[in-house]
Amino acid sequence: MIIIGEKINGFIPSAAQAITTRDEAYIRDLAIRQTEMGADYLDIAAGTSPRLERETLAWLIGVAQDAVDTPLCIDSADCQVLLDMIPLVKKPGILNSVSGEHGKCEALFSRTADSEWKIIALTCDERGISPDPELKYNIAVSIIQKAGACNISADRLFIDPLVSAVSTAGRALLNFTETLVKIKNNYPGVHIISGLSNISFGMPCRGAVNRQFLALAMSAGMDSVILDPTSGDMQAALYATEALLGRDKHCRRYLQAYRRGIFGSPLTKEGEE
Amino acid sequence: MIIIGEKINGFIPSAAQAITTRDEAYIRDLAIRQTEMGADYLDIAAGTSPRLERETLAWLIGVAQDAVDTPLCIDSADCQVLLDMIPLVKKPGILNSVSGEHGKCEALFSRTADSEWKIIALTCDERGISPDPELKYNIAVSIIQKAGACNISADRLFIDPLVSAVSTAGRALLNFTETLVKIKNNYPGVHIISGLSNISFGMPCRGAVNRQFLALAMSAGMDSVILDPTSGDMQAALYATEALLGRDKHCRRYLQAYRRGIFGSPLTKEGEE
Repeated sequence: MIIIGEKINGFIPSAAQAITTRDEAYIRDLAIRQTEMGADYLDIAAGTSPRLERETLAWLIGVAQDAVDTPLCIDSADCQVLLDMIPLVKKPGILNSVSGEHGKCEALFSRTADSEWKIIALTCDERGISPDPELKYNIAVSIIQKAGACNISADRLFIDPLVSAVSTAGRALLNFTETLVKIKNNYPGVHIISGLSNISFGMPCRGAVNRQFLALAMSAGMDSVILDPTSGDMQAALYATEALLGRDKHCRRYLQAYRRGIFGSPLTKEGEE
Repeated sequence: MIIIGEKINGFIPSAAQAITTRDEAYIRDLAIRQTEMGADYLDIAAGTSPRLERETLAWLIGVAQDAVDTPLCIDSADCQVLLDMIPLVKKPGILNSVSGEHGKCEALFSRTADSEWKIIALTCDERGISPDPELKYNIAVSIIQKAGACNISADRLFIDPLVSAVSTAGRALLNFTETLVKIKNNYPGVHIISGLSNISFGMPCRGAVNRQFLALAMSAGMDSVILDPTSGDMQAALYATEALLGRDKHCRRYLQAYRRGIFGSPLTKEGEE
């Protein structure tokens, strides 16, 4: 599993506070803790008004890169902002995100064609998010083809099938896995990614829903995820699922993570609900 | 999901102590708490030497029936003991268990043919537990056919595909689901059951492994389970998985359980690891 740590995100109130006050120590700590807990990438989202987004991202990128070597996942809905951040980043990470919206991915694909940047692509377009797995799949295909036309290899693409909240859409998981399986069957080289907490929106005890979703989504073929790596409960769920799916010989990585305190860290509960 | 509460079991040290001292209040409390937390059946296992098993089971059955109306799941490896307990039980529950061992299920099936007793059947025989899903399936078929010959309907049978510990068998889950799916595909009417904690034997943080196993096994078709219903974490995992699998419209049962305190009961952690 490819883990993207979600905590440096201005849409999270505590991080927003640190961003407003330019609390460098707080952001550094988020970068270090997530890296220690095994994050492969660190998501960096400003969560500010568009007017302040570039400046905020630039500051966050500087602080994070100063603290750790972990590659970054630059998070903005504005492709031009993503492109503008590239020169500030020491090594290629992930651009988060494009969609099937007309003209949106083409520009980004052509500008990053000759780089090593990876790209998260959402299965929505100018019509919004469809509840139909078939339509989502078609958008994914269109994106994959546009990437291919720019010589962007499949393994640089992370497709997000955009899971709904199960509280409002009872078939949220089934819709997600149906879309996922169809993409993976036809394009086994692309990655499938999801934010972990969208599905539990509006529910109490969200961590429990998120962890069960993790098992079911991984079992269906999801191979990358945006989550809070400082949650010990989530880490235990992640390593346990890897072991159960037969990907952790003799449960060695599970046992190592346990011994390193990853499952029972004092950070366990933070940000989990 | 059909939930069998596992806590009245002489193989659990605290229950063994209560059995030895004939601590009626302790056993009553286990019966009441498991019932309050939604157990459909209460497993009753003596955990004593064969010499004391009948007397111990009779006492446990009496205490449990005096405390609650929840039907019982009489648990013994000795079919004759199971049959001998039937007259003591107020209403038919589950007999736990028979296996494909020669002559073992035939006697029990013929003696319970005209009753409403349900029966748990293990997919092993005199050769032991096979690591081969095909062999396990064949044993299941043989048991199902013997039950059919006694006019025992499929829905009275709970087949246990006998999951191994993932710490020693990396494919434990995959072997389990492969067996399960084959049985369900060919005999959709039979129930598939498992003890939840076998898979995590020998691992730390067993609760995390058990909960992820629950999601994956339910997704594959397991419809009944032996677990600790007094664990709030386990209950949250159970209700969350039901909702994710599209079986809980508007998450109503999840939300009701949450409001009833089922997920955050002070009993949450007990017996979980």
